[in-house]
Amino acid sequence: MIPLVKPYIAPKEELMSAIEKMRRDLEAIRASSPLVHNITNYVVMNNTANALLSIGASPVMAHAPEETAEMAAIAGALVVNIGTLSPESVEGMARAMKAARTRGVPIVFDPVGAGATPYRDQVSARLINEVTPDIIRGNGSEIMALDSLGIKSKGVDSTVGSGDALESARRLSARTGAVVVISGKTDYIVDGEKVFTNDYGTPMMQNVTGLGCTASALCGAFAAVNPDRAEAALGAMILMGLCGEQALSESKGPGSFQVAFLDALFNFR
Amino acid sequence: MIPLVKPYIAPKEELMSAIEKMRRDLEAIRASSPLVHNITNYVVMNNTANALLSIGASPVMAHAPEETAEMAAIAGALVVNIGTLSPESVEGMARAMKAARTRGVPIVFDPVGAGATPYRDQVSARLINEVTPDIIRGNGSEIMALDSLGIKSKGVDSTVGSGDALESARRLSARTGAVVVISGKTDYIVDGEKVFTNDYGTPMMQNVTGLGCTASALCGAFAAVNPDRAEAALGAMILMGLCGEQALSESKGPGSFQVAFLDALFNFR
Amino acid sequence: MIPLVKPYIAPKEELMSAIEKMRRDLEAIRASSPLVHNITNYVVMNNTANALLSIGASPVMAHAPEETAEMAAIAGALVVNIGTLSPESVEGMARAMKAARTRGVPIVFDPVGAGATPYRDQVSARLINEVTPDIIRGNGSEIMALDSLGIKSKGVDSTVGSGDALESARRLSARTGAVVVISGKTDYIVDGEKVFTNDYGTPMMQNVTGLGCTASALCGAFAAVNPDRAEAALGAMILMGLCGEQALSESKGPGSFQVAFLDALFNFR
Repeated sequence: MIPLVKPYIAPKEELMSAIEKMRRDLEAIRASSPLVHNITNYVVMNNTANALLSIGASPVMAHAPEETAEMAAIAGALVVNIGTLSPESVEGMARAMKAARTRGVPIVFDPVGAGATPYRDQVSARLINEVTPDIIRGNGSEIMALDSLGIKSKGVDSTVGSGDALESARRLSARTGAVVVISGKTDYIVDGEKVFTNDYGTPMMQNVTGLGCTASALCGAFAAVNPDRAEAALGAMILMGLCGEQALSESKGPGSFQVAFLDALFNFR
Repeated sequence: MIPLVKPYIAPKEELMSAIEKMRRDLEAIRASSPLVHNITNYVVMNNTANALLSIGASPVMAHAPEETAEMAAIAGALVVNIGTLSPESVEGMARAMKAARTRGVPIVFDPVGAGATPYRDQVSARLINEVTPDIIRGNGSEIMALDSLGIKSKGVDSTVGSGDALESARRLSARTGAVVVISGKTDYIVDGEKVFTNDYGTPMMQNVTGLGCTASALCGAFAAVNPDRAEAALGAMILMGLCGEQALSESKGPGSFQVAFLDALFNFR
Repeated sequence: MIPLVKPYIAPKEELMSAIEKMRRDLEAIRASSPLVHNITNYVVMNNTANALLSIGASPVMAHAPEETAEMAAIAGALVVNIGTLSPESVEGMARAMKAARTRGVPIVFDPVGAGATPYRDQVSARLINEVTPDIIRGNGSEIMALDSLGIKSKGVDSTVGSGDALESARRLSARTGAVVVISGKTDYIVDGEKVFTNDYGTPMMQNVTGLGCTASALCGAFAAVNPDRAEAALGAMILMGLCGEQALSESKGPGSFQVAFLDALFNFR
């Protein structure tokens, strides 16, 4: 058992400065257009690619074991998302993660639906045990499932608040060394003892499929230009939240929100 | 040969009451957020998930045989769509359908492109013979192909009117016990001897890919909260039609229609 | 070595006439609604299908080796795109291309990410060597990679201008007999010694994923109604460019651009 300590919550001043760091990193992404290799689910591939293009990154999707190691090796970041699994894509993920680690390419892991089926738990455990990701991002249910690899989850939407999963995130971060991000009303970015929070955003984001997956992909783009993984993850979550708020003000429902969100990412200054 | 009888067409008053039942079911979906497990094609996964989220349901996509039985078992409905097949996904479908039947989870089957290739016919016959779906929804060509498993179909768009397929739907419903839905200018919902119709909608819906698949997914969400399968299917088709008419009034072509359609589902009162 | 000769650039008057030919072909597509069989990547399937529907074609996606030959045989055109590969889909592609050639169905090949991994190069070489496509469309990096099957490419976005790849396209066209299209600021349509250009379009198109893939799909639709493959490809690229310019004038970023682009295809007169 890892002893629980009261988590450190960054004061408001640091959050302000986090926005400035995010802007700096976003400029770096736009200037260098890092290649972000995604092995992700079929539901969100299009949105993920468009979100990455909208912030200036260069997305590529490739899942065949025949090529994932080579693709990950030339990437600026690797994003692995288990939303729609198959044994072949899992093999592709494992090879990509090993190649990325060898070449120093940062790895983001998104445990979509962890806890919903034994297969997802097995796959998550295997992948994380073979190569520890730099950043793990999920909703409360998923992070708790990863922590225990035993909690029952209902589908891919969270049944717990992000705050309820904070202790799980702390244990998971301490055990693996990864920065753990819990998405929710408040986002928590957990880096060992340190916990950063982000309150930007809107509940409308839960009515659009795959915005969590988009957040993971943006974590990858930010990690490609910022070696401080907690700063990278915090920057990605703040950008998501600010653009979500902007999109909400220009939309009438989840359809137009999705459109306005991409516009907001592209036009963010 | 099943003798043909003149189909019973529900009078207008019943259609009015069908709208009230649809509103009641939609409220139940929004209140209980049923998990709808989709094994569907890669073309429409995103739209399907977004449409389900827009009406308040909780979509999950999972096709690997390693997990479909477990996922279907915890779902409120299972929607199987053969749009982009592979032997692995067919195995995933078969396992999910058996698990759903065992657990009393309603099953919707969408025979996309049935009649276009022998493989689609074989897969359709196998799946339906192993576990009869509760609801089968397709366009005229597809329903006629299922009825005869021999009619030639051109691709995935219908080459016959929905009315032309009515006798096929009646035979298919009588033979299998499933509620059979034919989408078209007029939608027919065939439950044995009873035939309900829906005339809401707009031809623009045929210019957007996957709205038929969306209709099948909504049938699943409605079936998750209403054990009367014909009522559930009729409700889903009416909601599709009404939101299609609303979206048409706010759009300039198939691109903006798609966006407005999701907004309309979300905002429907 | 194929000797280099100064490419022939079509004068402006011919470009004007190309627009008229494009309008004629577009009318033919709307009138006959040709079935376009796509074996394409999971990122763009939805956009591709919607773009084809928006111009009046009838899209179908099918990649399983169990059915691609039959599907290609009944199609008006076959479009093969290697964006997200797997050994199974490659087998499906090979079978479809053979069936298409046997039945005289025009074949478009889109070498997404060629040069990025050895696997993509092997697949490209295998497919092209087995059945020469009628039209090959890619960005500068991809066409140069196909030409040499040795140039390093960074992901799926081009790192060279379209003009830099012109000699590669000429060699590739001479060697294979295919019409070779290079997408970029200026599009080049290379048919042996002849080179046509298209300057319509906007850089915003590079901020939306899969518009190159859409261009390939439209090449297929035009080839289904026009046996002159260079005219077909040029028509598709001009339509893309004109609708891109129209969409730009109605949008605020890549999200709304995508929506307006489909509307523009649908409403083009």
